[in-house]
Amino acid sequence: MKDSAVLLIDCPDRKGLVARVSSLLYERGANILHADQHQDHDLGLFFMRVEWALAGTAENQAGPEQSPAGLAMGQGTKPERFDLEGFRAAFAPLAAELGMRWKLTSSGRLPRVALFCSQYLHCMADLLHRWRTGELLCEIPIIVSNHRDVEKLAAFYGIPFEHVEVTADRRGAAQARHLELLLSHGVDLVVLARYMQILSPAFVARYPAAIINVHHSFLPAFTGAKPYHAAHARGVKLIGATSHYVTDLLDDGPIIEQDVARISHRDQVEDLVARGRDLERIVLSRAVRWHLDRRILCYGNKTVVFD
Amino acid sequence: MKDSAVLLIDCPDRKGLVARVSSLLYERGANILHADQHQDHDLGLFFMRVEWALAGTAENQAGPEQSPAGLAMGQGTKPERFDLEGFRAAFAPLAAELGMRWKLTSSGRLPRVALFCSQYLHCMADLLHRWRTGELLCEIPIIVSNHRDVEKLAAFYGIPFEHVEVTADRRGAAQARHLELLLSHGVDLVVLARYMQILSPAFVARYPAAIINVHHSFLPAFTGAKPYHAAHARGVKLIGATSHYVTDLLDDGPIIEQDVARISHRDQVEDLVARGRDLERIVLSRAVRWHLDRRILCYGNKTVVFD
Amino acid sequence: MKDSAVLLIDCPDRKGLVARVSSLLYERGANILHADQHQDHDLGLFFMRVEWALAGTAENQAGPEQSPAGLAMGQGTKPERFDLEGFRAAFAPLAAELGMRWKLTSSGRLPRVALFCSQYLHCMADLLHRWRTGELLCEIPIIVSNHRDVEKLAAFYGIPFEHVEVTADRRGAAQARHLELLLSHGVDLVVLARYMQILSPAFVARYPAAIINVHHSFLPAFTGAKPYHAAHARGVKLIGATSHYVTDLLDDGPIIEQDVARISHRDQVEDLVARGRDLERIVLSRAVRWHLDRRILCYGNKTVVFD
Amino acid sequence: MKDSAVLLIDCPDRKGLVARVSSLLYERGANILHADQHQDHDLGLFFMRVEWALAGTAENQAGPEQSPAGLAMGQGTKPERFDLEGFRAAFAPLAAELGMRWKLTSSGRLPRVALFCSQYLHCMADLLHRWRTGELLCEIPIIVSNHRDVEKLAAFYGIPFEHVEVTADRRGAAQARHLELLLSHGVDLVVLARYMQILSPAFVARYPAAIINVHHSFLPAFTGAKPYHAAHARGVKLIGATSHYVTDLLDDGPIIEQDVARISHRDQVEDLVARGRDLERIVLSRAVRWHLDRRILCYGNKTVVFD
Repeated sequence: MKDSAVLLIDCPDRKGLVARVSSLLYERGANILHADQHQDHDLGLFFMRVEWALAGTAENQAGPEQSPAGLAMGQGTKPERFDLEGFRAAFAPLAAELGMRWKLTSSGRLPRVALFCSQYLHCMADLLHRWRTGELLCEIPIIVSNHRDVEKLAAFYGIPFEHVEVTADRRGAAQARHLELLLSHGVDLVVLARYMQILSPAFVARYPAAIINVHHSFLPAFTGAKPYHAAHARGVKLIGATSHYVTDLLDDGPIIEQDVARISHRDQVEDLVARGRDLERIVLSRAVRWHLDRRILCYGNKTVVFD
Repeated sequence: MKDSAVLLIDCPDRKGLVARVSSLLYERGANILHADQHQDHDLGLFFMRVEWALAGTAENQAGPEQSPAGLAMGQGTKPERFDLEGFRAAFAPLAAELGMRWKLTSSGRLPRVALFCSQYLHCMADLLHRWRTGELLCEIPIIVSNHRDVEKLAAFYGIPFEHVEVTADRRGAAQARHLELLLSHGVDLVVLARYMQILSPAFVARYPAAIINVHHSFLPAFTGAKPYHAAHARGVKLIGATSHYVTDLLDDGPIIEQDVARISHRDQVEDLVARGRDLERIVLSRAVRWHLDRRILCYGNKTVVFD
Repeated sequence: MKDSAVLLIDCPDRKGLVARVSSLLYERGANILHADQHQDHDLGLFFMRVEWALAGTAENQAGPEQSPAGLAMGQGTKPERFDLEGFRAAFAPLAAELGMRWKLTSSGRLPRVALFCSQYLHCMADLLHRWRTGELLCEIPIIVSNHRDVEKLAAFYGIPFEHVEVTADRRGAAQARHLELLLSHGVDLVVLARYMQILSPAFVARYPAAIINVHHSFLPAFTGAKPYHAAHARGVKLIGATSHYVTDLLDDGPIIEQDVARISHRDQVEDLVARGRDLERIVLSRAVRWHLDRRILCYGNKTVVFD
Repeated sequence: MKDSAVLLIDCPDRKGLVARVSSLLYERGANILHADQHQDHDLGLFFMRVEWALAGTAENQAGPEQSPAGLAMGQGTKPERFDLEGFRAAFAPLAAELGMRWKLTSSGRLPRVALFCSQYLHCMADLLHRWRTGELLCEIPIIVSNHRDVEKLAAFYGIPFEHVEVTADRRGAAQARHLELLLSHGVDLVVLARYMQILSPAFVARYPAAIINVHHSFLPAFTGAKPYHAAHARGVKLIGATSHYVTDLLDDGPIIEQDVARISHRDQVEDLVARGRDLERIVLSRAVRWHLDRRILCYGNKTVVFD
């Protein structure tokens, strides 16, 4: 199990951002495991992800006498663990000065994920198996569906299942029940694993960049219903799937991942559906893993996915 | 160099089509090199491609005294070459009876291809190199452009170049000149190698399923102008290119081939343009090769590409 | 559910094979759904797969009074179903005359598949989910493992589980038990879903072209143990997985399917292992599906996979 | 045209490396365009690539009074251009202290590239077209071949051509001539664009990590001669191509890029050769571009390719 902290930053680009962040981390004895940054030169934006170990951070701690480049401050007290809250307190004023939006998390607390599905269970079965084998580091306090097909699978993995029927006349009640469930379970991330109902604007607004959906086409081609039928009718030679964050506009949120598979004139709609299931599993599970690994930053209608 | 004939068929599906076509070929001593068929069960259509050798067809040749189905063991007359015109005459009534559209061609006559381009020459350079090395079996009697950039390249490959300016006030004259050139050079296939002007309806009508274009997106996403800019703005994770037959509707003809490449948040529009050039070269050259190999059948707005 | 028959043929190539097979099918009123053939011109071999419907075969049925090649227009007896055993009897002498190896099966009898695994369950979980959802048309009478990890998963899907320990001193007993299980359950196909033990030569000999394994590399690179470690050490930029029939030579049987994924210098061995799991699932499940759909013919050390 | 500097570093990993390098750049007013780093945790190695603009670097220059994080030193003299030689002098002692191997280059001087080929010209034609269109930023002072086929192509692009025959009895003379040509033309990088002769150890030793070859297989599978024949014989379902730096061991140098294409049982050796040409062009041109963009670091027998 990892024992690390991750800092995600986005802010207006200016000189010295890497220097100032990395110097502060160095002063505090951080043993950096991964660091990556990105600049959008057109928009003048800067993005950064740094991950460092929380244990055993002492040995190279810089003393004040050391560096002509001014990497001073630390007192070399060789603590056993990185002082995360101390860093947070020290970083806040720097972030404020530089106009940063930032998020500091540690692997000590697992994100809490709610899984939604309808009748097709291939993505759900895939996510649950990956979770069981440790590929997805999170807690799954609840599985929600407007059908009962997933109930046995949920039981097999020992996850509470909640059936929330969504019909025309009780849509409001269902949406209220959804929000109630998410709040009562302290959910951080909602994953729509082929959930075929539209979410309410209130739901979406409550979880900005925290609802991941999979759409069974290569967006922006074939938005809306029955994309495999539309792909077949158009005679495309590749089909795709797309995972994205959900926004108010259907099938229009920031794209996280896409993949495609080759098809031919021999493939009927049902072949596309079958081929597509593999794509859906892969693009959705990657999106969830990257989100849980805190690799994704959203800006405008796009994502930065640090690798 | 190949020495073969190809028969392409499409017709309403019914029983016995393969049996009847293959039996006739067998009677006439054809040594089949490749045969493939396809059925569209939804539309009730049948498609077939058969290729056979023209030389050395003797040993099982059926004699005229044999059964009409000709499946007996031959003591045949062992001619040197397959009698293509005799087969054509024998096949015509069968085709008429079964409601077939068909096309019988031999490698003896190379198709004549006109290449059009504007200022970007990567597809043109690629096609010409493939042609020179024998990958594209055709004659190229003419290269046409509304710019002069391609002139030296045309000269290097020894192909006549024709500059046809296309401006708002002389569009009609240009279109007339295009048709005149194609007719005078006996052109069978027009390849638009990043030719950035709209063709006239008369031009398109004159060459049904015989004008191949490359569009620099994964159609039907990002039709129209500047697809790489649109892809960048949407934040997709894969870009694509599409080769298709030209119809009256812009970017809407039957798709022949598509391919994609992975991009990331690091890629700016100019990176997409550069990555895309490789995709464009590949999907266009494949489409041209398959067309020349008579592997493609169009129906509705789709293609069957026999492999 | 499909209701069809499949005929697989391989034999020395000669003229008229397609004509003779398709004519016999036509005479007997077969409504062909798919037909494909392949010739290996170097080796002079012919391969064919034909699939036809078993129900509703009446309208063009040829009567017995017609020519042996049966290409006349039928006034047939319009039976409800295709007479499969009658066809078998009629085809046998033709096959003998033409030196064919052939296999005629119908969808009426589901193949019986034994699944083997060790401790890694990703392929097993994937296959079982695909089976449950109808993607793999077979019966699974038994799951065998040298570990107990799979036991709960087997129970969830309602499949008998058999734990057969394989240790140095009881290898012989284990191998005997394996064969006993397969024979008593009438197993047609054995799938090694990351089963990490070597099979006995007797086992392999008993199931020619009927044991499918997945190897976690792009064969023939990185045969043997720990291929992801070897790939990492070599610094490759793509990793792969391969499904193949098992023969006496380790990792050397006929390849059925391969796929690759891009990696980078950032990926450590554990990342390769995780990425590879997706490849393994996909290449193994495709191989099993194609085998069950009777799309595969082996010859020499290769496969023909009809699409 | 870019106007930038690139610093490539590799050294033993330790804390504060990013902080110290980025702080020095910040002090000196560098406007960083891209920065990337990588750590090999197993080997304890650190790799970094930073690219910054050389023009217009003044406005955010840090003064000594500015930063609590100690980003001092600079005198805020707001020069028009980044002082590259000043930076070099300031960086050298830091690099020495931290045990760094490093390379500082600017876009002001184009690398000088020699292209070698034999009879197959697809890679050569591709590289020259990319060079002409500005995709490859370099000078090409010389094209060398043991055949004359490339002569006209070289003339078309205005590049001096040198025919150096390599036969068994004059191999030594040829190798001497090669080195003489490279030295007299001040060559920085040698690209073997399907050059089919073995280079001498002296040649290889003279250009460490500066000779790029393309091998027409997915290494380490099918090393040596005739890899497409070997791939066909083995019955693989994907073929590949690999670009790599040349070392003394044949086909064993650090891999830069690989790609694959799907094939089927229908593809004969000549089809593999044709499909492979596209792969070869792509993996070789990428490798050359990345090398010219100074994105590649070699260590052990591997490459880090910064993206």
